[in-house]
This record gives sequence, structure tokens and C-alpha cells, in this order.
Amino acid sequence: MNAPLPKAVLPSPPEGSRGRMVVLLSGGLDSATVAAWARARGFDVIGLSIDYGQRHRCELDAAKAIASHLGLTDHVVLRVDLAAFGGSALTDAAIPVPRDRPDAALAAEIPTTYVPARNTVFLSLALALAEARGATAIGVGVNAIDYSGYPDCRPEFLDAFRHLAALATKAGVEGHAPEIVAPLVDLTKAEIVALGVELGLDQGLTTSCYDPDASGRPCGHCDSCRLRAAGFAAVGIDDPRVAGS
Amino acid sequence: MNAPLPKAVLPSPPEGSRGRMVVLLSGGLDSATVAAWARARGFDVIGLSIDYGQRHRCELDAAKAIASHLGLTDHVVLRVDLAAFGGSALTDAAIPVPRDRPDAALAAEIPTTYVPARNTVFLSLALALAEARGATAIGVGVNAIDYSGYPDCRPEFLDAFRHLAALATKAGVEGHAPEIVAPLVDLTKAEIVALGVELGLDQGLTTSCYDPDASGRPCGHCDSCRLRAAGFAAVGIDDPRVAGS
Repeated sequence: MNAPLPKAVLPSPPEGSRGRMVVLLSGGLDSATVAAWARARGFDVIGLSIDYGQRHRCELDAAKAIASHLGLTDHVVLRVDLAAFGGSALTDAAIPVPRDRPDAALAAEIPTTYVPARNTVFLSLALALAEARGATAIGVGVNAIDYSGYPDCRPEFLDAFRHLAALATKAGVEGHAPEIVAPLVDLTKAEIVALGVELGLDQGLTTSCYDPDASGRPCGHCDSCRLRAAGFAAVGIDDPRVAGS
Repeated sequence: MNAPLPKAVLPSPPEGSRGRMVVLLSGGLDSATVAAWARARGFDVIGLSIDYGQRHRCELDAAKAIASHLGLTDHVVLRVDLAAFGGSALTDAAIPVPRDRPDAALAAEIPTTYVPARNTVFLSLALALAEARGATAIGVGVNAIDYSGYPDCRPEFLDAFRHLAALATKAGVEGHAPEIVAPLVDLTKAEIVALGVELGLDQGLTTSCYDPDASGRPCGHCDSCRLRAAGFAAVGIDDPRVAGS
């Protein structure tokens, strides 16, 4: 380890929400960090992973390993075939995943890896599961600092979803809609890496690559690989996923 | 026909949205009326039906028949197993569907047929499909007059979803999020029946019952059967579904 860990921001869970949390668990670094953070704060965590026809399906195996590692109460894997809709490099093998995009482009333009309305669909499903299972919170690993410029990772999107959740549900009408908790939204990737280390998360179980090879080995060139590599480099530790792959 | 048809309100599509519309097609009377209305106004219509583990799965067969009858451009049936989440009489055979609820209770309490966050999930999927296929509008048959008191059928829910859709999507960032069109939201069930007749919709293809028998015959006692029967009675015509079943 070459550099001191940055002081990670540790947001508190919303008042009264200690209890059960549904965490959207992609198998990537960010959502695994949210699940570890929720577990460390004493939440029962139900993981929800969506098999949406993504080309990087190995992330579902990663999500299962993470759920086991963190001792989640339940892990629901739901099939929702967004690949049947098309419109994204992540669900259509005919659209290449961009490689080595300039840093300046990352947050300035929306790349072809954008999946139409994906986080809206995923949060809606998390809302349905949370209400059905009596969860008081939904945890999501969206981040609007070191990210690919997706519109549905921004704080204003989350605020709009919170407003919707209160109106859309029986729980909301009764005054207790699940809280939408996004503890990483304002963290840098380096801070997320450092937070995972602090929490004892086995980061080697997580996979971030959009375009891995058949054995799950990361490409090293997609936005997600590059953001991840920069995060580990800034903290000054080796990425155990890359080291072990 | 015993009574004159009430003058149905015919809202105009939002300016600039003539083109392609995704219509959430349940197989019921209301959504079929929206699809017929969109077709009559010259929209290409893509129907989207969700196989969510509902006990009244026969509505999916009805949706297919309606899509064919109306000449839809495409009809996508997507499996999303909300029954795995539980929490509703419509997805859990162990929870009975309420029968013969008093009229006063219909809009005053949320019944066990409420499916957690169902319309949020369905609209999110419609948003994803609309963006992927370049549709400029999403049509939905929600109604807040003669309905079962579900929170996600109210105008304020739709407004919140419109706000979300503009923030959630690449299309929204570019200033052309799909419009959410709910032409029936303020109509009575009788007006919806009359509108369907005006539009030449074969209402005998539609099915509304929450708890049909194995052959798809309506129970006649659930909220949905009773609202439908009252609508046809108010217009003064026989329900061809009941007559033909």
C-alpha cells in the first residue's frame, strides 16, 4: 500500500430505517460496497440482482459469491430480458463496447453502454421487493463522480425516484415508503475502494468489466475497467480481481 | 342499446408525439381502449404485456388477440416474475381475491389485490422499450374514477413518473423524453365503455376479472368484474365478454 487511505465519507442510514434493506447487487464493486456498508450498520440485507441479458453475465456469479460472503438474508435473482428491447452495447452483441474513451468524454457524453431506463427499471423492482418484504430502505450503488455519464446515476434522478416511491406505493400512502439510500453518490472511485477496504469487503469477488472474455477476465479498456483501475491506483493498492484473474 | 352514449372525452396526443407509442396492454378493457384510441389517431403502436405471475394469466391470451385485432406494429410479452416477491392476492394463490366489496370501500381502501409497485415497474419497462425503439409516447390505461383505490393509478403518480422519465433517460437529457399519455384517467367506466364502442374495439376480446376460472370465465364478484358490469349497465349495452363466455 503506497498511500494513506483517504477518509471515506460514511453517511448515516435514514432515521428509523435500521432494519431490513433491499440492496441492488450487480456483482460490481460499488453495489458490493453498499451491501457491505449496510451489513456493517446492522441491516438485514436482501440482495436483488437482475439477469437482464447483459453481455457481462459473469457479474451474476459474482453477485452470488458476494451475497454469500456478506451473509445476506436472501438473494433474489430476477430475469428481466431487456436484451429483447435492444438499444445498448451491453445487451446487443452487434454494438461494440467503447474502448479507451478519453477521460474528458466520460462524464460529458452518454456512451453506447447506456441501457435505456435501466436504473429506473431496477429501482422499481427493488421498490416492489422492498414493499412486498417489509423493507424500510433500498440501497443502490450509483455514483455521479467517477462514472460513465449515465443520466440515471445523478442525484436529481434519485430525488425524483424518492418522490415517485412515496406516491406509487401503499407503504407511501401510509407514510412509510422505503428510503432510497445511495451512500456512494458523492464519493470518488478511490474513496469507494478505500471504504470497501475499511469494511473488510473481499473486493476480489467483485467484477466491473463491461466486456470480459469467456472466463470472466476483465478487458482493461472499457470505461468501467479504467475507472476501477484509477481508483485502486489512487489508493495505492493492487486490485485483487486483476491480480487474481 | 337502452341509453344514449355519453359524450366521451377525447384528449389530444401531446404536440409532436404523433408517431410511435408504446401501450401497456394488460388484456383488460381499459388498456385495449387506449390502444384502439392510439391506433385511431394514427400512431404506430407497440404493445407491451407483462407476464408477472398473475393468477389471471388468461389476460395475456386476451392481449395477444387484441394486438392482432388492432393491427399493432409489434407486441412484446415480457416475463417478470413478481410472484417471486409475493405480497398480493393477484400473485399469491394463498391470498383470496376479495369478493363483493362495498362500493364505498372501492376507492377508500387499498385492497389485497394491490401488487407492490406494479405500475411503477410496468411504466419503467415501457419507458425502457420506448427509448430503445424510438417511441415518442407511452400510453397507459390507468383510471382514477371507477377503480380499486390503487395508489399507482392517481394523476399525481403519473406526474411524478413524467418528472422521473425526463431525468432518467438519454432521451430526456436530449429534451425528448417519451410523453406519458393516460387518456382514461378522468373518465368513468361507462365513458370508457362508450369510447371503446365509438372506436370499434371488439370488447369481447378483453378480460377484466382478477379471479377467472380455468377456462377464463369471469367470477362476477371481484372489484374488476363489478366495475366493468356497472360500466356496461350504465351505457345500456350487454358486455360481449360475459354474453359470449
